[in-house]
Amino acid sequence: MTRVDVREKVLAANAAAAAELRRRFAAQGTLVVNLISSPGSGKTTLLEATVRGLAPRLRLGAIEGDIATERDAERLRRLGIPAHQILTGGACHLDARQVRDALAARDFGALDILFIENVGNLICPTSYDLGEDFKAVLLSVTEGEDKPFKYPAIFSRAAATVITKADLLPHVAFRLDEAREQVAALNPECRLLVLSATTGQGMAEWEQLLMESLDRKRSAAAR
Amino acid sequence: MTRVDVREKVLAANAAAAAELRRRFAAQGTLVVNLISSPGSGKTTLLEATVRGLAPRLRLGAIEGDIATERDAERLRRLGIPAHQILTGGACHLDARQVRDALAARDFGALDILFIENVGNLICPTSYDLGEDFKAVLLSVTEGEDKPFKYPAIFSRAAATVITKADLLPHVAFRLDEAREQVAALNPECRLLVLSATTGQGMAEWEQLLMESLDRKRSAAAR
Repeated sequence: MTRVDVREKVLAANAAAAAELRRRFAAQGTLVVNLISSPGSGKTTLLEATVRGLAPRLRLGAIEGDIATERDAERLRRLGIPAHQILTGGACHLDARQVRDALAARDFGALDILFIENVGNLICPTSYDLGEDFKAVLLSVTEGEDKPFKYPAIFSRAAATVITKADLLPHVAFRLDEAREQVAALNPECRLLVLSATTGQGMAEWEQLLMESLDRKRSAAAR
Repeated sequence: MTRVDVREKVLAANAAAAAELRRRFAAQGTLVVNLISSPGSGKTTLLEATVRGLAPRLRLGAIEGDIATERDAERLRRLGIPAHQILTGGACHLDARQVRDALAARDFGALDILFIENVGNLICPTSYDLGEDFKAVLLSVTEGEDKPFKYPAIFSRAAATVITKADLLPHVAFRLDEAREQVAALNPECRLLVLSATTGQGMAEWEQLLMESLDRKRSAAAR
């Protein structure tokens, strides 16, 4: 087998596991969001702010992916939601079988929304379906507005682009219009949000997107 | 062949190509630095500032790795140094054969220092030797001080950790001491520098590290 053959086989096995997860999440009425970004773009900080905003109304849970350390799951458990850490060893992305194993290893109970925080990496997680309803890609304003065109695969596939750390905009040379144009060129349907999990700016729009997505999924299931 | 067999075969082929590159760079007396970081940590901006500081005294060149866009090589060519862009398509790291092909495709002339700016990714580039003298890992202060323990492989193998965007320290909750301790725990020999390519703070120490490394390489070759 060549390298390409092996990759295709791995992706096919992943797709089968993801389809099984998607059926299970549909039966449970759980919205699943796969969060993807560079290391340090603020995925866990966004989840912390989301839990503070939505946990009073919704049952939330999280699966955290990292090469090493339990730190991110611990941060979310401190806020009172079930969170399971997957340690990938050296692997640069999560796969659907790891998500299935995480669901078997921890009792999440019935969830309204399950967040899957992928390994910090703008490239490799893109190809691995985890049974999610949609991918959200985060881009912090400190990373520069050129990233959508440099990493087109994830910005083409994500249903939402979340520009994070907007509170730092006065201190960096980030051209928001340019980022917006690049995302629109790659993916005209993509929702683009600008927020700061630290100040709360833009968080209401993010929470509304989650609530609407959950409602839409449950309405579709009821029909 | 299993997935592991394929990976081992790929890494063995890469190691052979890297060894050939290393012999060539030794014969030419060219210092080679492999820059690795998350997307948006400031690799190209550091190179721009380095060129402004050192190009009057040294012959510099750059090989730029990206999934897509010629943007980074263009930024460096505008400063008057030879720069070649490798577009990896979807691949998440550079390999030694791509570097060899880049050297064949563009006339770099005799260089004192060749910078290889890897694809923005803290994980996958770690395993691929490019014939460099040393790897430098960049970590911007906006990414958080927890990254060395979360991405231990690269912080263990890099001879230099460069903390970038130090001008943003007043605006973010980055604990420099914690980052320093994590790097020291993983890699006691690692040089740690704190700098801002925007303000120039710390740039002299970085340039000195490069000059000393070049002198050391040439002195060793002369013996």
